[in-house]
Parts: sequence; C-alpha cells; structure tokens
Amino acid sequence: MKEKETTLKVIAEKLNISITTVSKALKNYSDVSPTTREKVLELARELHYTPNSFAVNLRTKESKTIGLIIPEVVHHFFSSVINGIIAEAEKNEYLVIILQSNESLELEKKQVQLLINKRVDGIIMSLSNESNDDDHIREIIHRNIPFVMFDKISKMIPCSKVIIDDQKAASAAVEHLITVGCKKIAHIRGPVNPQNAIDRFLGYKKALEKNNISFDKNLVFTCVRVSFEEGYEFAKQICKNHPDVDGIFVITDLVAVGVLAYLNENNIKVPEQIAVIGFSNWFMSQVIKPKLSTVDQPSYEMGVSAFNLLLKEIRAVKEDKPKVIENLILDTQLIIRESSKK
Amino acid sequence: MKEKETTLKVIAEKLNISITTVSKALKNYSDVSPTTREKVLELARELHYTPNSFAVNLRTKESKTIGLIIPEVVHHFFSSVINGIIAEAEKNEYLVIILQSNESLELEKKQVQLLINKRVDGIIMSLSNESNDDDHIREIIHRNIPFVMFDKISKMIPCSKVIIDDQKAASAAVEHLITVGCKKIAHIRGPVNPQNAIDRFLGYKKALEKNNISFDKNLVFTCVRVSFEEGYEFAKQICKNHPDVDGIFVITDLVAVGVLAYLNENNIKVPEQIAVIGFSNWFMSQVIKPKLSTVDQPSYEMGVSAFNLLLKEIRAVKEDKPKVIENLILDTQLIIRESSKK
Repeated sequence: MKEKETTLKVIAEKLNISITTVSKALKNYSDVSPTTREKVLELARELHYTPNSFAVNLRTKESKTIGLIIPEVVHHFFSSVINGIIAEAEKNEYLVIILQSNESLELEKKQVQLLINKRVDGIIMSLSNESNDDDHIREIIHRNIPFVMFDKISKMIPCSKVIIDDQKAASAAVEHLITVGCKKIAHIRGPVNPQNAIDRFLGYKKALEKNNISFDKNLVFTCVRVSFEEGYEFAKQICKNHPDVDGIFVITDLVAVGVLAYLNENNIKVPEQIAVIGFSNWFMSQVIKPKLSTVDQPSYEMGVSAFNLLLKEIRAVKEDKPKVIENLILDTQLIIRESSKK
Repeated sequence: MKEKETTLKVIAEKLNISITTVSKALKNYSDVSPTTREKVLELARELHYTPNSFAVNLRTKESKTIGLIIPEVVHHFFSSVINGIIAEAEKNEYLVIILQSNESLELEKKQVQLLINKRVDGIIMSLSNESNDDDHIREIIHRNIPFVMFDKISKMIPCSKVIIDDQKAASAAVEHLITVGCKKIAHIRGPVNPQNAIDRFLGYKKALEKNNISFDKNLVFTCVRVSFEEGYEFAKQICKNHPDVDGIFVITDLVAVGVLAYLNENNIKVPEQIAVIGFSNWFMSQVIKPKLSTVDQPSYEMGVSAFNLLLKEIRAVKEDKPKVIENLILDTQLIIRESSKK
C-alpha cells in the first residue's frame, strides 16, 4: 500500500504549529526558537521527511537535471564520454537523463521534445548519423535552453561545441602511413552525414594531395553501421579488388579491429603487406595482435568539458545574462603501434 | 536573455478567455467550442507552448522518470544492460536518470538519497563492490518505492531481482574444463563482497568436489578492480608459482583477455598447455586470438526484464495495490571456443 507522504503540513499538524514555522525551522532560520527547531527536526527525521523536488522545482525553476542524447550507449567512445559527463555532473550536484537515439533522426526529435517538456536545465547532444535536418535543434536554441554539442555536431547551429580537429588528426594519421612507405592508401570512412566522418575523409584527401598521391574514389569505402563486420567485409573487398593497396586508414578502432581480423585470418602480414591505422584509441587497440596504431581522442575529457560549458550557460541563463557561445577544440595524439611500424 | 515562458495564463490573457478554457481546449474537452479550441491550439503552437512537467508532476504525483544506479558505465556488461533498460523505458515513455557509483558505497548512498528526493517513480540498481551495508536500500523499501535489483544484488533485501544462476553457470564452465582434461584448475575470482563473485567461486568449488579434485586455496586469486591488468598479473603469478596449472576459470571476459595477453606474450599455448574460460560473452571474446570460451550472460534482456518488473511495481503502487516481489533467473549458455578446445 502507498504510504502517506510526510509533508510540511503533516509535521505542522502533528506539532500544532504553522507550515511556515516548520519550513523556517528546516531551513535553520533564526526567528524560530531552538526548542521548536529541535522538535521539527526530530519529527522530520522520524517520519523520513524529504523535500519534494517537484515543489522545489516550481519555485526555483531549476530541475538540477540535464539531458544527454547520444547515438548509442554500447560504444567505447560514448560510454567514456558519458562517464566524464556524469562524473562532472555529480561534482556539481546535477543529475543526468540519458537518451539513446539509436542513430535515428525520428527518435532524436522525439527525445529533444521530451527533454524540453521535462524542463531540464540544459541539453548535451551528439547527433545521430541520420541527422541532416536541424529544426528540432533550432527549437532548443529558440527557447534559449543551455545547449552543448559534442563529437557529431552540426556546423550550422550557433551553440557551444566540444570537438576535436578531425581533419587535422586524420591528415596526421594518413601522413604517418605515407612516412612509413605506403604508396596506395585506402580509406574506410564513416556514414555520409556526420560532420566528423566528412572531416576525417577530407583530412585523408588533403594528406594524399600534399604528398602528390592521386586520390582514387574507388579506394574509399563507406560504413553504414560503423561495425566490426563492415571492417572485415571491406578488408576482404580491398584485398580482392585492389591487391596493391599497402595502407588503410579506418574511421574508428572498432572497424579497424574488423580489418585486422580479416587480414590475420588470411595471413596477410600487418604492417609488412598492409599497414593499418584506426581512430579513437579504444582500450582494446593495445590488446589485439598486432597492436593497433590509432589517434587518441580524449573522450572522458570531452564529457567533462561539455558539462562545464553547459554549466556556464545554465548560470548565465539563471542570471538573465546572454549565453557565451564557446567552441572548444581538444587535442588529439597520434599513437604508433605495431600495425603501422614498417 | 531568458525568454518569458508561455504558460496557460499567457495564452488565456492573449485570447481574453479563462485559464480553465485554455486547459480544456488543449486537452480536447468537448465543452469548448471548435472555434475557441482552434484559436488556442494555434496560439499555443505559435508561442511554442509545452506543458510544464513540474506542474504536471505535482498533480499526478508521477515523474515518468526512473533512476538507475550502476557501478560503472564503461563496461561492456553494464552498458548493454543500460541499453536494454532505456530501450524498454522509451517504449513506455519513461526517462532514465543514470548514476554511476564508481564501486563506492559512500557515493551509492548519496545517489539513493538524491533519487528519493527527486521523486523518481522507481529505482533499478546493481550494487557497488564495496556494498556490505544495506541501510540505504532498506530506506527505499521502507518508502515503498518500486525497486528492482539486478546482477550484483543483496540476498538480504526483500525486493524484485533479475539475476542469473551464477553458481550453476560457474560450475558448468569448470566442469567443461574438467571434461577437456584439465586436472589442476585455478580460479581468478571477483572481489569479496558481491554476491555474484561469491556464487561463481562456490560454483567453481562445487565442480571440483563433484569430480574429486581437491580444492587448493592457493589457486584462487582475488581481483580488486576486475581489470585487464589484474588478469595479466595473475596469469604471470600462476605460471611462475604453479607451473602444473592446466586450466583457468576467470570471473569475467575482460580479465580473461588479460590472462590470454600474458600467455600469448610468453608463448604458452592455449588451450594445449593451459585452457582458459571467461564469463559474460563480451563481443571482443570472439575477436581475440585464441577466441575465448565463455558463459553467455543475457545483459540486454536483463535490462529489459528489470525495467518491466519495475513497471509492474510502479503500476501496483499507483493503484494502491501491494507490490508483488518477483525473482527472475535468466538462462545462461556455455560457449565453447578455441581457448578451451583440447
């Protein structure tokens, strides 16, 4: 059976004092006598009184809750970002509602609306791969809700962002392959919409140009689900149709691990015959054989920074000050391991 | 600058009608004329009106939000459970607040109190490794808050639970090692407090007894952080101090991957010299060399079931009916791969 909830009213009735006095006693106001305060506190403890957050919310207009929308939870990069966000939220006494768009634009739109209705204090988001329509995001901006994007962002939206320089990082990875002697480099890229997949592709292209290697669109393979299986399958296609490819730059480590699985099973020597470099520095990259070269992407720090940018905006809005839009570009680091040491 | 929020009052004033009429129009009540309703809906759309969830909450006493406390997010098992929980919550229009205890009892206690204050409709929880004190959990039960535990549970708490039969599953894994010819089997176990670590250890012991293999406490190694590094280190100790060990049963796949890394690096043949079996069927288990035998633990289904048990309790409490406590034991499956095929 549902127990009757202890409210200020219940305490007031039991002690035969006013609700205001109870409220003041609980807040330690000086105009309540020590005896009364002691009585109120004792009864509140006994009856397991806790302040009702809904009521508090209506008064302060704050929910002390933020919303986070990400494409998927079961993903080394995103789970590590979540970790950074909720650790920082914890420190600042905020709660985090986590929604997963499953890379679906439709679901993402619905979730944005849900968070708006829920009156969260702010929203952090990484776009789904399907997102090419910004209306739901513009709605957040229009309502002046504190809002930070990270990783998969839209360049068109005027809001705070935490990103890395994907183009530069991808160029550095491909230039490294060229330095170790690769002459024909394939790229397994991410889906067509996300800005970071586009930028990594552009970085790949730029590195080839800079080194006078002609770009061949037949050497670019586009993932849809960005999976281990796609890496395995594209590696097979590369080996069958382009036997002279001697280097592969892969959108992310998970897919690169699929590439290595195919090459290992078919006794193609890495890095001697084909050098491989991934992206994101997943912990597994240094566990597999051969150890995978990659680009370290500071995922935990990305979460921490995203929360802190959001907190700045929340405070600005609370004080009726204009939000300051910040673009934070975090450093990446090239990590050379066995898979690309020629 | 903070925009003035569109409330029922704002709409009522602009149209010069009562707040009650606006409210009824938005809810499609039949005693509002179609013309008025149309006007209200049009203005509501124009002003981006959304119902205030806090106000709604005070009336319905429902937050349509549940809380989830888990030891860590960046963990293949837990991220997959989260996935199951939020997918099922999504279907039923619930939001999920996720808190990470970082395996700390102190943090876990604080988080339980936060969720209680937040008036979530229910709480799902897997205990931290430090948890050996149940007072904060009893507080949830005392308040009649819908509550479901999964994976790392406390047998002492009368609440709904979703678990697997850890003892039985562990016994099956160890019996498999015995069947393929192992005579001296070490166990790398989990920390001392969690019930599932205790049960897997008991399952290991039982399988030895049943097969007349004497139990040797020197062959049991206890993880603290349950990490890759601990697997690597314990494998080293086993090989140095107990060269006749020919099988290892490991608390979870991540740790088992650490064991395999040490054995591979030191050219100890798996399974010929030492057979290895893990637990949980992490996706990486079938990617590494040799492919790891393991016990499949239905993590996604565990999340789905936990949410559904919680929903039943939420509905019961809402209808002032007694909660029915259910204990759900999900099936596990032994998966034999290269690391234990002799």
